[in-house]
Amino acid sequence: MPLPQPALPEPAHPNVDSMLSRKFGKEVANYFSGSPLNRVSFLRPDHAFLSQALKHPSTSFILFNKLEPLIKSGTELAYANFNEVQPIIGTDPFEKTEADVIKEYNSSTYVPQIVFLGLDERKEGFQYKDHYKGQPYFAVDVTPKESVTAAAEALIKDVEGRGLSFSKGRMHLSLPAQEAAIYAEARHLLDWNARNPFCASCGYPTLSVNAGFKRTCPPRDIAPSIATPDRPPCVTRTGISNLSFPRTDPTVIMAVVSADGQRILLGRNKRFPPYWFSTLAGFLEPAESVEEAVRREVWEESGIHLGRVVIHSTQPWPYPANLMIGAIGQAIPDGEKIHLGHDAELEDARWFGAEEVREALQVGTSGIGEDAGPGYKEGGLRLPPKTAIANQLITAVVEGFATGAPSL
Amino acid sequence: MPLPQPALPEPAHPNVDSMLSRKFGKEVANYFSGSPLNRVSFLRPDHAFLSQALKHPSTSFILFNKLEPLIKSGTELAYANFNEVQPIIGTDPFEKTEADVIKEYNSSTYVPQIVFLGLDERKEGFQYKDHYKGQPYFAVDVTPKESVTAAAEALIKDVEGRGLSFSKGRMHLSLPAQEAAIYAEARHLLDWNARNPFCASCGYPTLSVNAGFKRTCPPRDIAPSIATPDRPPCVTRTGISNLSFPRTDPTVIMAVVSADGQRILLGRNKRFPPYWFSTLAGFLEPAESVEEAVRREVWEESGIHLGRVVIHSTQPWPYPANLMIGAIGQAIPDGEKIHLGHDAELEDARWFGAEEVREALQVGTSGIGEDAGPGYKEGGLRLPPKTAIANQLITAVVEGFATGAPSL
Ligand SMILES: [Zn+2]
Ligand SMILES: [Zn+2]
Repeated sequence: MPLPQPALPEPAHPNVDSMLSRKFGKEVANYFSGSPLNRVSFLRPDHAFLSQALKHPSTSFILFNKLEPLIKSGTELAYANFNEVQPIIGTDPFEKTEADVIKEYNSSTYVPQIVFLGLDERKEGFQYKDHYKGQPYFAVDVTPKESVTAAAEALIKDVEGRGLSFSKGRMHLSLPAQEAAIYAEARHLLDWNARNPFCASCGYPTLSVNAGFKRTCPPRDIAPSIATPDRPPCVTRTGISNLSFPRTDPTVIMAVVSADGQRILLGRNKRFPPYWFSTLAGFLEPAESVEEAVRREVWEESGIHLGRVVIHSTQPWPYPANLMIGAIGQAIPDGEKIHLGHDAELEDARWFGAEEVREALQVGTSGIGEDAGPGYKEGGLRLPPKTAIANQLITAVVEGFATGAPSL
Repeated sequence: MPLPQPALPEPAHPNVDSMLSRKFGKEVANYFSGSPLNRVSFLRPDHAFLSQALKHPSTSFILFNKLEPLIKSGTELAYANFNEVQPIIGTDPFEKTEADVIKEYNSSTYVPQIVFLGLDERKEGFQYKDHYKGQPYFAVDVTPKESVTAAAEALIKDVEGRGLSFSKGRMHLSLPAQEAAIYAEARHLLDWNARNPFCASCGYPTLSVNAGFKRTCPPRDIAPSIATPDRPPCVTRTGISNLSFPRTDPTVIMAVVSADGQRILLGRNKRFPPYWFSTLAGFLEPAESVEEAVRREVWEESGIHLGRVVIHSTQPWPYPANLMIGAIGQAIPDGEKIHLGHDAELEDARWFGAEEVREALQVGTSGIGEDAGPGYKEGGLRLPPKTAIANQLITAVVEGFATGAPSL
């Protein structure tokens, strides 16, 4: 049975009327955005802050086993407390300063990944200095491996005994918007740390610092198997390098409107179920503006030439590390002919009339592989669910973003 | 003497009137965008295409020495032809299929980096299959090193003897918009390849493929110094991994308008010359929408709380790999108090009136460290030049983006 589709997050300060909101309309907040946490990113290098936050009785831990979160059900995360994770992460993993941790680096020691996610300022409890209060959130990798195998297996047995489980893939998760945003932050960072154990500049193992938001290439490694602890120079040590920081891949996704504003271009690839179409999308390339990437992708995939491109809204997408940048583009009058032969990504692309698309938004949306709602007739157009930015872009177009309505 | 400020690129199809352009205004094309090249990205794995394009007599090569381009002057790139670069790259570096190149991988062989940039379709000459024609552009790394030291030194001596030189830093480059966009593509990709010689997943050396747009982790390495050619498994080989593809870091940059729309927030850091201010900016973090990243950065750096955020335009920035996403945000009425104490990035931040900012856009702009224009009076506000997206955002605000004007 498909899980219920969650509601979208509310935009920040939804009740604040502003000149921008009067002119451009209410902000569209896409699924996986809308986190209630203040990340207080500047406190991540502060081990005293991290240590106090980690051990506070109000603190919530999201546990991950092979990148799957611990859940009560497909619509609710489960949270652990410090006592439960302590056998895995130790009594005070942030006891030492970062400088000392780097100095004592030993690549043969397994350190389970911990990520500080932020403070939920709506909830009382923890406070640090004057300005920073709220309930701390951390993510912890409890995958049974290396030195924590036994402790992790015991923890997993315990939580599973209480009816909790680790999610079995993203198709089985449908979290409420705010939990989805917290989960997305945790998953993106755990994945990035797990995916990058070595320094791309020098090839040596790296070490997680800044509570999961940085990986550093230590100058010494005291692992017993290594003859000389001192390592060769690495450029990531002598200046700020993007290699040390989490990667996010900008992706463009766009609803394409015909020159007369009456039709919308949709495409489908071979993996889509029957009658399914969606907006075109692709990765932004080096040294492209978003507007250029939109025009390039649309031409490469469909042969259509776009003029003006406007950015509509954006969406974090934690599988594994994307930023979806949603845009609306309009074809130029002599550029509407479809040609699928440049890049072989699409099996089909077609211009659809606004009425057919409006109908499909009513009755034909669902997650891929799930059934459409009641009212759907076999053979009708199928579209992605509201939680996909593609749906929001298509909706904006049929609601007159490019043509009729006075505002975004 | 400061170099002249180049004009901005024209947006694509600037003469095409569309519903989007009538509603949102003409697209703002920022400096480093506006490339005249068609990247035909789907042809990059096609070694026959690359080989023919590389050796075509019309083909232009941009040479780089330690990431600095060969120039005629600070306002003009110099181009080499195939005969000139052939002693460095060989007679046919794309002779073999990618599969064969990977099969014969030898990490002890130095291969100078070549990047296929695209086809300039405005110029006759080269043609491939039915659809793909134009003058091919490549970038080549001619840094004297390893096995090409002598050939590269000879080439450099030759071009320098003809009055050409390699640029001496970005402060000394002020290329026309279209050349700047081609240079940005080349620089971003050469830097990414040079910065990532090792696989972040397994720590072994990687190999450039897809004409500079991909790095692959070969399963075997026949370097004579390596006892066993077969390498351990690497996850980048068993699925598509972002580690194999160029990295671009999304960055948010935002003009902040007061709740009443009459003032604009600008900040300065310690490295700015006297009287200089600019928009706030920072890296987007994992699992943030652009709108959320704008609100977080503005609060962390200035203490100000934003409501509605609208994305204005974007800019590629090849130092080394940024995508600047330009936005306009409006403060909420009780969120305008400046507090610099969270993150220590800014030395000062202030609300400026529209009149003072308008005046500074007229007389106070320049590159950092350069003199303002005539009409500037000592002590007046200084702002970044037109080629910076910060300038475009500030201009949009004083021209009524958030308030008066009917369109973007
Ligand atoms: Zn390193
Ligand atoms: Zn590898």
